[in-house]
Amino acid sequence: MEAIKTKAYGATNSIFNGLAPMEIERHAPQADEVHIDILYCGVCHSDLHQAKNDWGNTIYPCVPGHEVVGRVTDVGSAVTKFKAGDIVGVGCMIDSCGQCQPCQHGEENYCQGPVSWTATYNGPMKPDGSGTNTFGGYSTNMTVKESFVLRIPDGLDINAVAPILCAGITTYSPLKHWKVKAGDQVGVVGLGGLGHMAVKLAKALGANVTAITTSKDKQADAEAMGADKVLFSTDADAMKQHEASFSFILNTIPDKYDINDYVNLLNLDGAVVAVGLLGEYKKPLNNMDVAKFRRTVAGSIIGGIAETQEVLDFCAQHNILPDVEMIRMQDINKAFDKMMDKEVRYRYVIDMQSLKDAE
Amino acid sequence: MEAIKTKAYGATNSIFNGLAPMEIERHAPQADEVHIDILYCGVCHSDLHQAKNDWGNTIYPCVPGHEVVGRVTDVGSAVTKFKAGDIVGVGCMIDSCGQCQPCQHGEENYCQGPVSWTATYNGPMKPDGSGTNTFGGYSTNMTVKESFVLRIPDGLDINAVAPILCAGITTYSPLKHWKVKAGDQVGVVGLGGLGHMAVKLAKALGANVTAITTSKDKQADAEAMGADKVLFSTDADAMKQHEASFSFILNTIPDKYDINDYVNLLNLDGAVVAVGLLGEYKKPLNNMDVAKFRRTVAGSIIGGIAETQEVLDFCAQHNILPDVEMIRMQDINKAFDKMMDKEVRYRYVIDMQSLKDAE
Repeated sequence: MEAIKTKAYGATNSIFNGLAPMEIERHAPQADEVHIDILYCGVCHSDLHQAKNDWGNTIYPCVPGHEVVGRVTDVGSAVTKFKAGDIVGVGCMIDSCGQCQPCQHGEENYCQGPVSWTATYNGPMKPDGSGTNTFGGYSTNMTVKESFVLRIPDGLDINAVAPILCAGITTYSPLKHWKVKAGDQVGVVGLGGLGHMAVKLAKALGANVTAITTSKDKQADAEAMGADKVLFSTDADAMKQHEASFSFILNTIPDKYDINDYVNLLNLDGAVVAVGLLGEYKKPLNNMDVAKFRRTVAGSIIGGIAETQEVLDFCAQHNILPDVEMIRMQDINKAFDKMMDKEVRYRYVIDMQSLKDAE
Repeated sequence: MEAIKTKAYGATNSIFNGLAPMEIERHAPQADEVHIDILYCGVCHSDLHQAKNDWGNTIYPCVPGHEVVGRVTDVGSAVTKFKAGDIVGVGCMIDSCGQCQPCQHGEENYCQGPVSWTATYNGPMKPDGSGTNTFGGYSTNMTVKESFVLRIPDGLDINAVAPILCAGITTYSPLKHWKVKAGDQVGVVGLGGLGHMAVKLAKALGANVTAITTSKDKQADAEAMGADKVLFSTDADAMKQHEASFSFILNTIPDKYDINDYVNLLNLDGAVVAVGLLGEYKKPLNNMDVAKFRRTVAGSIIGGIAETQEVLDFCAQHNILPDVEMIRMQDINKAFDKMMDKEVRYRYVIDMQSLKDAE
């Protein structure tokens, strides 16, 4: 298989000095594959976590990026869904076993095959499994199995659509799984890349949405996104007043926090679902508070491929787009810093032309 | 209202030197009340927790006991469901607001009225609410509102039935709420008063039941109760082999433990529900493990009155009875010690004749 020399940005080792330009290899599409010229790639908190080896499982070199939007340039002989020129997306996964029960039910994100699903970057999810490292969308092109490629619906601005492929599906999937419906009192904690999509999606589902944030300066934005109310989690009195008032809370905070603060906001049979944190909470959960209203503490990871297509179509139907700031590939390390400082409004998207134009 | 001098056993202060004999006052039944001659009372872990003020909310004197079986001796003028001579039960609650949504839906145990539900002992659940202290079943008689009195079905041995009124309903309610059904892989952690009932109830619901315990000497008992398998939580290899294998786990451990050990036993969309611990877990929950299989960590408290009647009827129908050891009221402190040492097989029940006969 002929190698395609491809420009990329990645981390070379765990002593994280930021991402740097590098060259990687792609391959021409096999029978069931699609070759994509990458136009845009969203910047997710996970990109930084993975590049820095925060989860202890990073394979180097690490080329992040799993909110990929591009144009099909070539397709394999057996590809039926896509043709050259199509605008397509790639999210967090590029393969799964296809045989296990979750895969058979369109939940490839919970694949129970021997190596679990294959991440768009950093390869198989179980490091002891077979398979090699994979390189993500911080690059100029990629080759992906057709069944893991999404159609970008007409009418969605391709400059802004990329974050739907992770931030969108990651928040849409639990909203649907926990059956959020019109009139429900829904809280969204954290108003970043995931949170701002969750506010828009929950609102489009008809819920009464409260944005819960520490950032006083995000109130107007939250309301513009559709939040009916903004609750500042730093205001102990306001938090107390909102005890036992939500049926569903989606918590998008990516770093350690005290889950008990949000458990207490849930009403009888309410659920708080964490999609940001992939590690331990700050303090032990108090089961007195959980049990007294039969509350649920749960977590969720991305969503399946069919559901990713569904959220793209849902966004097109409801005129929902992420709020993005376009950056150049060369500015990624500054963007990471600003993301850490909660300065992004609300998702960075890399214009990959900047990398193509680079010497 | 004329006071009825009543023999009881209780704690007089938080410096817990064990329970001692005391005299309390009951009253003749008002229009909607039933007066009960107490025959048997089960001994619950909560009795000890409350007497020792482990939850910091004990009102003294404290007379425990919320697994009460007795004979109706007198009824108020408006009582229609019971008559003198009926064998009846009283569980963990003797009143609730009756107006809130949970009360209207038969879930008095999640009453959201101003004082929440009224516990059979230690009074209203919200100490800042109105209402006075209440005295439980470690006594020779009590007067209870008819709507909080249960029928003991014919055919259930009245010597053994008492623990159904707390241990039974506390485990039955979450099994039903989480829709445990035939063929489900169910784990029951802790083989004490609650756990041994959970094994029997889950088995009667058709589940494939694994008893998870630290006690090597309980294997034969667990199998006799209907467990298909016994898993020793002290055996790290066995625990590892059972990862991701249960759809539902009921955890009845009454003291601090590491919830993560049980989270990892759950399969996709599985739930672990804690009914024993009413406080903090030992360690922070790891959301990586929760989210990767969209697992649920939840809690549950007892069950409603209608559901308590349902579990009594269910037990009669399926020939389920708690395994009890009968004790004298005077031996309660020894029984507490043995309960702490996990020596009880599997619930102590006090024969209240021993208190009636006392000088």
